[in-house]
Amino acid sequence: MNAPAPLSRQMLNLAEPTDDGWFDRVRDHLDTILIDHAHLEKRAASTALSMIFRYTGRAGLARQLSAVVQEEMDHFSRMLDVLETRGVELIRLEPAPYASRLVKAVRPQEPYTFMDKLLVAGLIEARSCERFAILSENVEDPELAAFYRELFETEAMHYTLYTNLARDHFSKEEVKERLLELAKIEVEALRAGGSIPRLHSF
Amino acid sequence: MNAPAPLSRQMLNLAEPTDDGWFDRVRDHLDTILIDHAHLEKRAASTALSMIFRYTGRAGLARQLSAVVQEEMDHFSRMLDVLETRGVELIRLEPAPYASRLVKAVRPQEPYTFMDKLLVAGLIEARSCERFAILSENVEDPELAAFYRELFETEAMHYTLYTNLARDHFSKEEVKERLLELAKIEVEALRAGGSIPRLHSF
Repeated sequence: MNAPAPLSRQMLNLAEPTDDGWFDRVRDHLDTILIDHAHLEKRAASTALSMIFRYTGRAGLARQLSAVVQEEMDHFSRMLDVLETRGVELIRLEPAPYASRLVKAVRPQEPYTFMDKLLVAGLIEARSCERFAILSENVEDPELAAFYRELFETEAMHYTLYTNLARDHFSKEEVKERLLELAKIEVEALRAGGSIPRLHSF
Repeated sequence: MNAPAPLSRQMLNLAEPTDDGWFDRVRDHLDTILIDHAHLEKRAASTALSMIFRYTGRAGLARQLSAVVQEEMDHFSRMLDVLETRGVELIRLEPAPYASRLVKAVRPQEPYTFMDKLLVAGLIEARSCERFAILSENVEDPELAAFYRELFETEAMHYTLYTNLARDHFSKEEVKERLLELAKIEVEALRAGGSIPRLHSF
């Protein structure tokens, strides 16, 4: 099977790929990464649901994001299975500062809030996706590796869905320009996590 | 096909059944009821998700409620189809005071907050369920009637799931006693909605 990562890095419009050392830095904390990932799926569902609440009237949004909520909850549920199989408890975990840093970049005036929320959600999906690809290539457990390959594909679709929703409501140029700006902020947000072992650590 | 309502009224532990006049009072506002119902599914997903966030560590809860979130979002999505078929827009709608009145009855100290949140969520599912049965027996559109019969069954399972979760964490006697108290408050909360055409109006 071909490794999905090189393709993903071009597709996902990330300003910088994850460096080759990331997996080595988290390798000894895999269970922590898995717990962090379970919480992340729950937060991804919550993000999509809160956008449905806020922007129900926007064409196509409610239907598309309700599918995202369902998929993220399915992933959450399957992460519970992964943790259970490994005998790991889903403890509370201080999240990396990543998402909160990115949320700070969302402009407070509509319709820019809407655009930025979509693009930030898209970038988080893109980075998660990239990390899932790295995990799928590096974890020793073949079942877990296969699971991450599958997640890579679903989350890549979520990235596309969020950015396409932005393009449905704003001009291509505006979206492209803002996505470039936010992608740079995304890398800074990743750096802010330092070496704490998280899915979105540096 | 047998009408499910008489059975439901006993099973669901509601303090008072909906009176025979309810459907007549909302009959001319069916589209409003459908919009209200769509919003309700979205809120039901949000309630289950927020309980997962708050009580992740409680045995069995995260897994069971993540299935609830998925089912409520599926219903939400299907309600969007129902509205689209009828050419009805999902506009914002002031909800009945029902749910907020019930939430006020949730005791602020843990572990009672946890118990009450489960039982209130269960009662809301129970009443919704009873109303779906009434709708399934009374709406003229046979497709919509069939849809409501199906929803009746799923939401009845959600009622059972919430009350069983309460019984998993508290004694049967405590749960029974509190459920009786809350069921009385539920009827008052329903009355608070007056004659405004909503799924949870009186």
